[in-house]
Amino acid sequence: MAAHLTNTTATARQPRGLAIGIDIGGTKVAAGVVTPTGRVLARRRTETPDKSKSPKVVEDTIAGLVEELRADCSVSAVGVAAAGFVDERRASVLFAPHLAWRHEPLRDALRTRLGLPVVVENDANASAWAEVCVGAGRDVRDVVVVNLGTGIGGAVVIDGRLYRGRHGIAGEFGHMTVVPNGHRCECGNRGCWEQYASGHSVTREARELVAADSPVARTLVQAVGGDASLITGTLVSELAAKGDRACVELLEDAGTWLGVGLANLAAAFDPELFVIGGGVSECGDLLLEPARRSFRRALTGRGYRPEARIAAAELGNEAGLIGVADLAREALPRRRQGRRQRGLSDCNGRRGR
Amino acid sequence: MAAHLTNTTATARQPRGLAIGIDIGGTKVAAGVVTPTGRVLARRRTETPDKSKSPKVVEDTIAGLVEELRADCSVSAVGVAAAGFVDERRASVLFAPHLAWRHEPLRDALRTRLGLPVVVENDANASAWAEVCVGAGRDVRDVVVVNLGTGIGGAVVIDGRLYRGRHGIAGEFGHMTVVPNGHRCECGNRGCWEQYASGHSVTREARELVAADSPVARTLVQAVGGDASLITGTLVSELAAKGDRACVELLEDAGTWLGVGLANLAAAFDPELFVIGGGVSECGDLLLEPARRSFRRALTGRGYRPEARIAAAELGNEAGLIGVADLAREALPRRRQGRRQRGLSDCNGRRGR
Repeated sequence: MAAHLTNTTATARQPRGLAIGIDIGGTKVAAGVVTPTGRVLARRRTETPDKSKSPKVVEDTIAGLVEELRADCSVSAVGVAAAGFVDERRASVLFAPHLAWRHEPLRDALRTRLGLPVVVENDANASAWAEVCVGAGRDVRDVVVVNLGTGIGGAVVIDGRLYRGRHGIAGEFGHMTVVPNGHRCECGNRGCWEQYASGHSVTREARELVAADSPVARTLVQAVGGDASLITGTLVSELAAKGDRACVELLEDAGTWLGVGLANLAAAFDPELFVIGGGVSECGDLLLEPARRSFRRALTGRGYRPEARIAAAELGNEAGLIGVADLAREALPRRRQGRRQRGLSDCNGRRGR
Repeated sequence: MAAHLTNTTATARQPRGLAIGIDIGGTKVAAGVVTPTGRVLARRRTETPDKSKSPKVVEDTIAGLVEELRADCSVSAVGVAAAGFVDERRASVLFAPHLAWRHEPLRDALRTRLGLPVVVENDANASAWAEVCVGAGRDVRDVVVVNLGTGIGGAVVIDGRLYRGRHGIAGEFGHMTVVPNGHRCECGNRGCWEQYASGHSVTREARELVAADSPVARTLVQAVGGDASLITGTLVSELAAKGDRACVELLEDAGTWLGVGLANLAAAFDPELFVIGGGVSECGDLLLEPARRSFRRALTGRGYRPEARIAAAELGNEAGLIGVADLAREALPRRRQGRRQRGLSDCNGRRGR
């Protein structure tokens, strides 16, 4: 992660040192001690406290992981990535669908408790930051990152800087409408992109195929003994990798919708590169090739414009904790220098690993 | 337009002086001498040369207008706004649907011919710049501008700076797909936003209503003597303003689609303000109220997030020439200072008029 620190001197870099990154997902909390070059030195992992539990329980979980990790090394900052809307001060979680947080002042609570500087960041922003600094987007300055998990998370890097929006919640691409009156989404609306190109959509379509007892779904039906509720996105992806036609088609459908949405984002953002991350992206070209085809088809001005590349993310499921550790670390000297933090986070000097 | 020059000294501003702005639309070319405070001192207007004519004819038209205008005053730069894709160096028009330009190196040709510094800019970027500096977006730093004309043009101002994208063609919102397999668009795709929320869409729907000889369209039918081909967006807007129910509904339909697209843009960009410009926006609340309603309905995370405001543009059809004149003027000292021009154009110091 030193990449974007290339222009700073070793002396200036020294105080930044190690940072702890914590990535709070819907089911797991992953934590690690991260070096300025993006290496993870130590790891901890635990279950995400149930949504019904009070916010305090998640705070306890985070504090416990930090105390364990800092017992063995000296860290200068803590970054917390969460799947939710984080305000522009990177202090409060406004809303997290999978957690009990509603306008939760997480940063200040943890800072007081841990005695360390803390930054809270949206998980897609955090993992995008890592990919741009030391992953698939290194050496590229204008990148849109799309993370395909249960839903779709997104982040935007403009001219080497993370773009957060006026209120900190830019990049919610998963909730752009692509089908009027389409499938109902967990956000309350209908026809959101993530209802057509995410782990959730692949699972839903596969279950409907099995429930319909369609002959094309024979392998899937056998794999779950006829019980559609046992189908997961991972199963579909495994069967597709083995060549099962129905599962290949299910990924093609999701990939095709992925490409349509990417073409929309290209019209709006005109990036140089799309990085596709998240669990579903591990399907690789089974997903990305159909996406590239439909992207080219749906891209406005094709023939007259340079086309953005579409690449798979490189850092896997540690991207979030690597990215947020670095964001926490790099917030340190800036705050001292009195530079503005709102809207854009700078990654100017990053080059190579 | 001096607004964003507040932080520069009077001495530094002096050399910028007057600039000429030229806005090339599908039917008219508008030109004017613009002061650093955004006032238009002198104006010229002519027909846009037919698409079948060679690029040289448009160049002649521009050069003629500049020579006329500079005969009476000393200008320091020329800005040319065009409805098309302009490259990231603001030198070439890659593609302009209504003109003969294809990868046309307009900037250098005009610079040589006129002996003045020239900047070429997308027309939506130019008018957005004017609105942010001295129009509806002054004092706001994160603004998305949507111009409703025959089609939809767009522009993004992030933290007070114009965002152009990696290749100079960000903000092509009109060609984001909102209806899969929807109406065919002039860009070649189907279901583009501008097929549902633009002057073109209002005209098309009104013509279909009249062609269907629907009783609800009685006033419209009478107004054009039964000849649907005579219907224009302006007519629909005039009849709606007089209270004709069918025309009010046609604007409601366009406004509702406008709100859906704005909600998509809010999910992606999270701006503080949307400014709605272009000829169609002159319908005012007949269009904007339905847009605000459907925006609130389609906005993801409603209830947990601050909502962007939606305001009408203030500068009318001179916004493009005012904005591009200023962009040309402000490119002058920067180039001398060797500052980067790609991607973001700074409007940092603008405050008030």
